[in-house]
Order: sequence, then structure tokens, then C-alpha cells
Amino acid sequence: MNGAGLGAAHTSSGAAILDVIRAAGTISRVELTRVTGLTAATVSTVVRRLIDDGLVVEAGRAESTGGKPRMLLQLEPTARYAVGVHLDHAGITYVVANLGGAVVARWRRPGAGADDPRDVVARIAAEIATTVDRIGVDPARLVGVGVVSPGPIASGTGMTLTPPVMQHWADFPLAEAIEDAVGLPVLLDNDATAAAVGEYWSGGIGTGTACAALYMGTGIGAGIVVDGTVFRGRSSNAGEVGHVCVDLDGPRCWCGGRGCVEAFAGPAAVVAHAAQVGLTLPGRTVSEDFATLARAAARGDAAPMAILRESAEYVAVAAHTLANLLDLDTVVLTGPAFALAGSLYLPVVQERLAAGFFARGAHAVHVRISAHASEAAAVGGAALVLQSELAPRQQGMRVVLGESGAVPVAGSGVA
Amino acid sequence: MNGAGLGAAHTSSGAAILDVIRAAGTISRVELTRVTGLTAATVSTVVRRLIDDGLVVEAGRAESTGGKPRMLLQLEPTARYAVGVHLDHAGITYVVANLGGAVVARWRRPGAGADDPRDVVARIAAEIATTVDRIGVDPARLVGVGVVSPGPIASGTGMTLTPPVMQHWADFPLAEAIEDAVGLPVLLDNDATAAAVGEYWSGGIGTGTACAALYMGTGIGAGIVVDGTVFRGRSSNAGEVGHVCVDLDGPRCWCGGRGCVEAFAGPAAVVAHAAQVGLTLPGRTVSEDFATLARAAARGDAAPMAILRESAEYVAVAAHTLANLLDLDTVVLTGPAFALAGSLYLPVVQERLAAGFFARGAHAVHVRISAHASEAAAVGGAALVLQSELAPRQQGMRVVLGESGAVPVAGSGVA
Repeated sequence: MNGAGLGAAHTSSGAAILDVIRAAGTISRVELTRVTGLTAATVSTVVRRLIDDGLVVEAGRAESTGGKPRMLLQLEPTARYAVGVHLDHAGITYVVANLGGAVVARWRRPGAGADDPRDVVARIAAEIATTVDRIGVDPARLVGVGVVSPGPIASGTGMTLTPPVMQHWADFPLAEAIEDAVGLPVLLDNDATAAAVGEYWSGGIGTGTACAALYMGTGIGAGIVVDGTVFRGRSSNAGEVGHVCVDLDGPRCWCGGRGCVEAFAGPAAVVAHAAQVGLTLPGRTVSEDFATLARAAARGDAAPMAILRESAEYVAVAAHTLANLLDLDTVVLTGPAFALAGSLYLPVVQERLAAGFFARGAHAVHVRISAHASEAAAVGGAALVLQSELAPRQQGMRVVLGESGAVPVAGSGVA
Repeated sequence: MNGAGLGAAHTSSGAAILDVIRAAGTISRVELTRVTGLTAATVSTVVRRLIDDGLVVEAGRAESTGGKPRMLLQLEPTARYAVGVHLDHAGITYVVANLGGAVVARWRRPGAGADDPRDVVARIAAEIATTVDRIGVDPARLVGVGVVSPGPIASGTGMTLTPPVMQHWADFPLAEAIEDAVGLPVLLDNDATAAAVGEYWSGGIGTGTACAALYMGTGIGAGIVVDGTVFRGRSSNAGEVGHVCVDLDGPRCWCGGRGCVEAFAGPAAVVAHAAQVGLTLPGRTVSEDFATLARAAARGDAAPMAILRESAEYVAVAAHTLANLLDLDTVVLTGPAFALAGSLYLPVVQERLAAGFFARGAHAVHVRISAHASEAAAVGGAALVLQSELAPRQQGMRVVLGESGAVPVAGSGVA
């Protein structure tokens, strides 16, 4: 595989026009001229190239409003595909998504565990090749692979903030290794940011919104997308809402803080709380025990319900803090924990924001559960690739994990 | 006065070139071509117009590196001025700043109090006219007035979130009235956002930084500037860090929340705490009493020091929360309360961020006190006007306060 790229879309006017067509659904050349501010001649030339490259098709004429009806253009969703890979020690989730934002394949395999990173990369390359072949996607239409890996990534220093269970990955050139093995460009990002881009790309949030994807996996984090642009901060570590203090006298957190949201509300805290009150949880992992608790709460068992309710109160504070600091109008609950128990968390978060969001006199904050909560990070990985091809300002970080002199800090904020 | 505008800078290439010259200090036409990506012919034409308009001057030749030495260009700081007005019930602060970011006049007058808004506007217009005349600024060089008023302002609905003491301003078309009275364009914004723009404009923060101006006046708020762009969120109400929860069981706050930072750390809380422990504070206002406490603490009095230390712990949490969510590299303490007591707060905030900032493995967060802490909001008002002329993406909100159907919510988050 060699990476199709987007052909004509690789000029800035091409990318801009393609993004407008994608957002509009269908649109005429005349409207494109108006919306983009480009000349009619440029629009005509670029659209011709996009059609030649198969990225755009003519979709029939608009209803006439007097005069000759205008030919409408639309994206050809099957023209390009990207692969998203969510790499975690407990499991690897894969998706294949097309240019239209639809997920055409999703599957899950055992995680990286303690395996040698080179073996894991070889498995990933084999998985992608096999599935792309099986579902009949032309490899020439694949744009790249978005890998969502544990850790924020320190793009400036090449240093990674790797969770303890994946310390042996800290010095591994992940992007480079997967690029070599798969033969496609690779982008890396963290789970919460990827999930936010995935929501935007798959139409879950509109272009004019200020949105945070509140991601709960092992920990709690947030990805922020405002007006279609990812907010990354100085070093792409924005959104670390799991490490916001909600109790100055709270317990010491591994991050160096005290009384962090994650320590009260994260899955590990929920499971520990359940053990404290004497509930029997037979799982081998926090994820399995959290799932057991979520199922019991959904059945109406009082003790698990109370424990998850308490976690939800803290998650609601996290959402409230995000909304007040970023002036959000949308919060999307996503990630595996909300895929399991989102319906228990949703009303608590909604209630808190309705009553307490600071600028509620100006607008409400809408809260909902992602349509892709269980595989949001992998969907986001694919979206990062497609988005970076179309709108370069959105691009993920093309860095190599811990390339040199990596000095991992204890643990990670990965959600 | 009629508002000079910036002449040639009012084209997008003119604004871009002027902003690059401002940031560079001195720069040649060749370097401008390289930095802006414009053609040499465009740079040459635009620079000629900027020189004709008096905005840019030639400042001598660079040292030769072989070949003919290049003529250097620099901003003419006295070419344009803007007025900043910080309107508060307790006092009105004025500044006049020039295009180079220097404050050339600053003065303070009694506040709006319970006066009729029309009388206050007439006073403001007279103050500006008198001082501009006295300091010898050519009125033709005035670009506009930036008014920083108790806000936030709901631009979408025209609704204001007015503090109780200024409820009679809620339906008053403030911007329009000042425009009519002064004869200059008016921009409105809130204090913390204006302060952040002022820091950026006056060179307090660089272009490549992610910075929050943590503003403590009556309350606590933050303005956010990342890569030279103000982060406003959905409705320009971003940065409400005073209403971040730090204690789920804390006291109910007027904002609808519980356990807000402001309720523990704001000047009113500090003064109330001092009264509780039996300190005698003879001031008529919270500001006066806070100043008395700050002076006593600076002298080393134990009880005031302990009370301000506790406030500082909460302010440090607010700074930490901002830094973790926005991935900041710079926090500037500003506003009247930090002008008085900043040196007591600074080490506490620095210590907390050094030990607990989440991405400290990637970069540090620098904390310092603003050089304009006492009049930061007014300086920011002037900066908003100059900045909006040069870089339209930065512009303040040209809205009329509570134009119609205003439904003020209880109180305000104004800092």
C-alpha cells in the first residue's frame, strides 16, 4: 500500500472546497464561489480536478428558482478511506472509515500487553492488510493510519508521558515503525483528542459549536473542538480534566496533584469503592469489574447505582469546569466507560449544567452520549487522517514517540 | 473626533504586514516577503502606503552581510492612539495607549455609582476630550475607544449578566451612547479578556505562547490568549475560573454552583474571613478593606498573612485548573487585587504549578505579575481597539449592552 492521498484536494483551495462540500452535503458551484470567496474560474478548475480524482460527483440539478437549475455537487464517500487504531495494553481496536465519515469496519483484538513493540506492530500491519482485503476496499484508496496510543505525547521534546504498564514503549518509534510495516502515512494522537475529532468528522457536532468530548476509559480526559478546530494548547496536552482538583484536602494523585477528579470518579476509583463496601467483583481487570458494576446498576441494584451516582457527580463537576472555562455549548460523553454506563451519568451531568453553567443566560450546554462511545478513539484515529488531508489546521501530530532521550514521568493522563 | 482608522492597514495584507513589523521591531522588505508569503511587489506597494499613512518609517540600513545593506522598517508608535475605559461602579479608569503598546496617559475618576447612565456617558466623553487635548495627542490620530464594562456580555441575545449594583445599566445601549458622545468607534469586552489582550499587545506575552491572564478585581476571572488569538468560546464567556468547583460540599454560590473558587478566594471572601477572626477593617468597601489587609500582610502581620495565604492556595488551584485544561505555558496575575497583594500570591501559584502541572514533563508554566496590574482592564480596552484594527480576528464585541428584552441573571462573573 502506498497511500492514495487526496490528489486535487492537496492544494489549499482544493482542501477548502472539499471541506465545504462535505459540510454542505450538496452544493452548487455558484454557492461554492460565494462561500469560499474564491473566483468562479478557480472554483470551476478545482471542482473539475476533484471530479477527475473521483472525490466529488455531480448529484443532479437543484430545483429551479427561475433560470437554469444549478448542478449540485457532493462528496463521493467511498473515494478514500482511513484506518484508525486504538492501541492499548488491554486491547487493540481497529476501524476503517470512509471520506463521508461512515465506519465500514470495526474489530477488536488482544492488546499490546507485555509484548515486544515490534511484534505488536507486525500484528497491526497484518490485521489491517487482512481486513482491507476482506471488506473489498481498494488499497489505492487508503489515505493513512491514525494511531491513538496511551499518553499525551510531548511533540516538542519527543518525550512521552507513558503509563506504567507500557513503559517499554517509551523509546519506541511507533509512527515510523507502523509507517514502515503498513506502507501508509501515520498520525499519532491521544484518545480524548482523537475522540473529539471523530465526533466532529462523523457529524456528531456542527461546525459552529464549542464542544468537548469527555472521554472515560482507564482515566478521564477531554478533547476540545471549537468552530471545527482542535484546541491543543502549548504542547497538545490540553483537556486534562481528570487532573482538576475538586478537594484541596483530597488524596495525593500520581500526577503530583491532590484531590483530582479522576481519583474520585474514574473506573479504578469506582471499582475500589465497590470493593470497600463489600461488593464481590470477580473480574481480572478494572474494565471488567466496571462493566459488571454498570450492568448491576442498569438492573437497578441499589449499591452499584449509588457508587456510580457518586462517580457521576464528579464527572458532572468535570463537565461543568470544562464548560465554564471554555464556554462550551456541547459536551459529548464518550469512551468505553460511557459506552457501558453513559445512561446513568447523562442525567446527572445534564442537571448540573442546566442549573450551574455560568453563561446559561446566553446559551445552554447540550450533553449527550456519543454514537461511537465504545470505539471513539479508533474512529477518531481514522478521522484525524481524513481531516488532516482536508483541513491541514486539524492535523494530528506526526511525531515519533519518545524518539530520543525520553524521560517518562510517572504514569499518564491517558483516559 | 472622527476616528482615524489605520488607513492602509485596513486591507488584510496591510494589517498582516503591520502586525509582522510590530512584532519584529525592525524588519526589511525582503524578510517581510519571506515571513508573510506575499509577493515582493505586494509588499513593496503596501509598505509604500503604510509609510504614506505615517504608520511605518524607515529606520536605517541593516549591517551588511555582503551585498547592499537592506533598509529596515519599523512601526511609528505615535501614528495612532486608542483610549481604554474601565467602567465600574466604584471607579472609572482611563488610559491612552499608542500603536507601539506604550501607555501615554492614565487617570482615575469616581465610578458610575447609582448615577443615570446618560450622565456617566457624558462624563466619559468630557474626560476623554479634556485629556486628549491636555496631553497634546492629535484627535485625528485616535482610532477608537475600548470600553471594559462589568460583563460578561451575551452577544447572541443582547442579554447582559449584570452585577446587582449595576442593574440599571442592563438595558442601556452603552457602546452606541459612547460612540455618539465621543464620535469614535467603540468596542466592548469583559475585564479579564481585555487584560489578556493588553498583556499580549504591550509585549507581556509572546506570539507563540499559551497564556491566561488571571484577573482578580471584585471577583476572579481569566482571559485566554493562545498563539496571539483570544480564545472566546461560544459566546465570549470563556475563562470563568472563579466559578470552578473546588469543594462539592462547599457553600452555595450566586452563580448556581457550589464551592466555587471565588467564594473561597475572592476579595469579598478574604475580607469576610478577616472579620470572622476579629480583625478590625475600617474601610467602606471590600476593595479598601482588601487593601488594608494586603498592606498589613506585607508588613508581616501574622493573621492577615495567614488569610491571604489561604486565598492564594485557592487561586493556585484556579491557575492549575486553567493550565491543565488549556495546556498553558504562561499565567499572568493581574487586576487591582494582584496589584496590591500579588507578591504574596505569586510564590504559592508558582509552587503549585511547578509540582502539579500535568504536562510539566513537556514544558513549564511561567507565572508572573502583570506590569499593568492595577489598570490592566483599561490598558486592555485600548489594546482591543488597536489589535482589532490590525488583526481583525482579535476583535472585541461590537454589541450593545442589553439592547432589548434583557433578562439579567442574578449577579455577574465579572472579576
